[in-house]
Amino acid sequence: MKNSILIINGLLLTMEQEMPLVEDGAIFIKDGIIVDCGTSREIAKRHGRVETVIDAESHIIMPGLVNCHTHLPMSMFRGLADDLPLDVWLNEHIFPAEAAMLNPDSVKKWALHSCMEMLLAGITTCCDGYFYEDQVAEAVMASGMRAVLGQGVIDFPAPGVPEPAKNIDVAEDFVRKWKSFSSTNKSYVQDAGHSRIQDAGYSRVVPSVFCHSPYTCSRETLIKAKEMAKRLGVLFQIHVAETREEMNMVRRINSSISGDESRDMSVVQYLDSAGILDDKTLLVHAVWINDADMEIIKSRSAKVAHCPESNMKLASGIAPAWKLVQENISVGLGTDGCASNNTHDLFSEMDMAAKLQKTALMDPCAMDARSVVEMATIGGARAIGLGHITGSIVPGKKADIIVVGLRKPHMVPVYNPWSTVVYGAKASDVRVVMVDGTILVKDGKFLNPDFHD
Amino acid sequence: MKNSILIINGLLLTMEQEMPLVEDGAIFIKDGIIVDCGTSREIAKRHGRVETVIDAESHIIMPGLVNCHTHLPMSMFRGLADDLPLDVWLNEHIFPAEAAMLNPDSVKKWALHSCMEMLLAGITTCCDGYFYEDQVAEAVMASGMRAVLGQGVIDFPAPGVPEPAKNIDVAEDFVRKWKSFSSTNKSYVQDAGHSRIQDAGYSRVVPSVFCHSPYTCSRETLIKAKEMAKRLGVLFQIHVAETREEMNMVRRINSSISGDESRDMSVVQYLDSAGILDDKTLLVHAVWINDADMEIIKSRSAKVAHCPESNMKLASGIAPAWKLVQENISVGLGTDGCASNNTHDLFSEMDMAAKLQKTALMDPCAMDARSVVEMATIGGARAIGLGHITGSIVPGKKADIIVVGLRKPHMVPVYNPWSTVVYGAKASDVRVVMVDGTILVKDGKFLNPDFHD
Ligand SMILES: [Zn+2]
Ligand SMILES: [Zn+2]
Repeated sequence: MKNSILIINGLLLTMEQEMPLVEDGAIFIKDGIIVDCGTSREIAKRHGRVETVIDAESHIIMPGLVNCHTHLPMSMFRGLADDLPLDVWLNEHIFPAEAAMLNPDSVKKWALHSCMEMLLAGITTCCDGYFYEDQVAEAVMASGMRAVLGQGVIDFPAPGVPEPAKNIDVAEDFVRKWKSFSSTNKSYVQDAGHSRIQDAGYSRVVPSVFCHSPYTCSRETLIKAKEMAKRLGVLFQIHVAETREEMNMVRRINSSISGDESRDMSVVQYLDSAGILDDKTLLVHAVWINDADMEIIKSRSAKVAHCPESNMKLASGIAPAWKLVQENISVGLGTDGCASNNTHDLFSEMDMAAKLQKTALMDPCAMDARSVVEMATIGGARAIGLGHITGSIVPGKKADIIVVGLRKPHMVPVYNPWSTVVYGAKASDVRVVMVDGTILVKDGKFLNPDFHD
Repeated sequence: MKNSILIINGLLLTMEQEMPLVEDGAIFIKDGIIVDCGTSREIAKRHGRVETVIDAESHIIMPGLVNCHTHLPMSMFRGLADDLPLDVWLNEHIFPAEAAMLNPDSVKKWALHSCMEMLLAGITTCCDGYFYEDQVAEAVMASGMRAVLGQGVIDFPAPGVPEPAKNIDVAEDFVRKWKSFSSTNKSYVQDAGHSRIQDAGYSRVVPSVFCHSPYTCSRETLIKAKEMAKRLGVLFQIHVAETREEMNMVRRINSSISGDESRDMSVVQYLDSAGILDDKTLLVHAVWINDADMEIIKSRSAKVAHCPESNMKLASGIAPAWKLVQENISVGLGTDGCASNNTHDLFSEMDMAAKLQKTALMDPCAMDARSVVEMATIGGARAIGLGHITGSIVPGKKADIIVVGLRKPHMVPVYNPWSTVVYGAKASDVRVVMVDGTILVKDGKFLNPDFHD
């Protein structure tokens, strides 16, 4: 059968509540969609003749990982300026480097570089915000991965947007352009037996709006940008409550624009008062939030991107991620940009997320391995609005799947596969990576010869 | 020239204060000893004809990593019981599993498994403490790695030592046996032109004493074991101040054996009062120590093994590692056993060590990358008493060397090699591993066909 793939004989983690784990599991894929999954025996019986078979013996089969927060082109700054105070890092290194090095070509080149890094590490979807986001979208298209992409909005002259007054218009143009691509660009495929419409890949790029932060965007800009995102039905991403200093900055903004009453608003309260929070708002970092903020986030059904490695490396603080998860708030895991991490590696991020919450809460039971894998897959997909498309293995979803080797010494033995994924597996254990049913990585290497590593 | 190796064209990190970094660096090795190092041009000129050439272009050349704290056979329990309260973990899982699964054969098998895991990850030396340590020593010998090994002393019936009264005798026998091997077992090699004495590999195993902890060994046992270690001139390892509960336990021990005065002794003070601390004592964990304890550790020239991942996963607490480093106390990095980590990976441990101190101190400058690499190499070597043999690249030391690839996307670009090693490199980037001048791993794979992975 054309365009059909069978992944068989693996330890299958579906990330679905019903049947989360199949010890000898298999998946049948047709035209990029997961059609069936279960035990190898039943799947082989039901779907005997396929075009491609992937034998996953001694491997885990699981959903591709979802990286909920990136700035893809920033891989060009990886390791440029580490171990420095935040203001020195930003003002003396990152801002000057951005001014000197950012242009459409460098953005596209390094965004593609980051996509390659992520795919090799088993990340099939990311959620990005940066400037020249058109070039980022082209890089994502070329790489074969899936992404939610937001053109950056900031009230300063920015790369590609010299006039801040036009920042929302530029962001709206980006959203309209990629929405139209996604809705209209289908390619017509002539198969041996039949012809059909095939997705040309534009659906892998989902446009979004990315407001940099409450302290770099005015209240007016935030309101306008959110209105635009609402009107166009897209995700609104924003850095929120990343540092302790940000709380004071927002307090100063409050006191200058309003009466005494709102001076002591938290960052989350401030955003909520501007109508920013709803189920299509992704709050990135959410480190300095209190219980009242959590209540607001929950009541608005807003989502959170947790970035523990970035928060640790920049000494921003520790987000109450375990509490958010326990409150049933949608939390995904993000690497953040390479200037503050320095790799796009959700395997190390999972390990860090688990260990950091245990440390912060002095509780070894906090942030258990299965909860972490959920954050890195279905939780992340839900947080960025793609929970219906990716993040778990269930009939009807896109075939965004990875196969992870269990034979290396550090992966032996396996008592509990969730533990093995979080505390054992490394990005280098990813052997097969598939997005939309297209095999991009096999034996840990790209099939596309242009993507040498 | 026989038995000569040239590693050339690499980015050389020597870990020596003079000439820490050579951009286009090379090393000349003869009979397992580093003879010369410098720029590729000068080394090639001085040592033109060699038996083996390793081209390290686009690679880092650095000392093999030193893992200062392991329980090698515990890889058999990897992932057996995670995310549990400490007492449930120990009493309901680890202790019963040890009772059921530990025997000389399983210990040797899984110790070798751990050695293979470590070698692939660029660890050339470890410092271990466990039971059936004879079997661990045989595994280390077979693997080709270097290790300081301590037979466990504990005042309970233990695997292989059913009578606690004999625990120190068994430990002393172990030390004497492996000291005699090391001092006498040389093999006679007939070369083409000449004959010479060659180290048969026994010098790679350095015996030591491992007392489990101040709360599982009586004061009398600690004193006797330390006296024995002193008499034989070997390292004394002990778990110290790992958990908050341990402080209370030691306080109870104090109050039962002495007057009021010593009741409020800290764990470190208690050990010092028993004469345990000197320059051949390795304090493992040292999480719950205060400034006065640090003064004692410093004045006795005792050493510390910092195990951040283990401390985080078990929610034990955060050791003041950066303060220890700044106090010029010898600090090495350790993974601890696989039941509490779960891998022997010093690359992830380095990353974690840096990020954890920044987080704990809310200071992004704390535990900078270069200091971390020092902990994982020369600092660790000094901490376990092997600073004169390994841990840095300088003429006269043993050729314990690794070559780390820089071509994978996550390693590009390199602005600062220390950052690249700590925040970028993964264990899987290790391509060549050499111990005592013997190449064990090439292209990331074992040359010994018995060591398939
Ligand atoms: Zn960010
Ligand atoms: Zn230990």
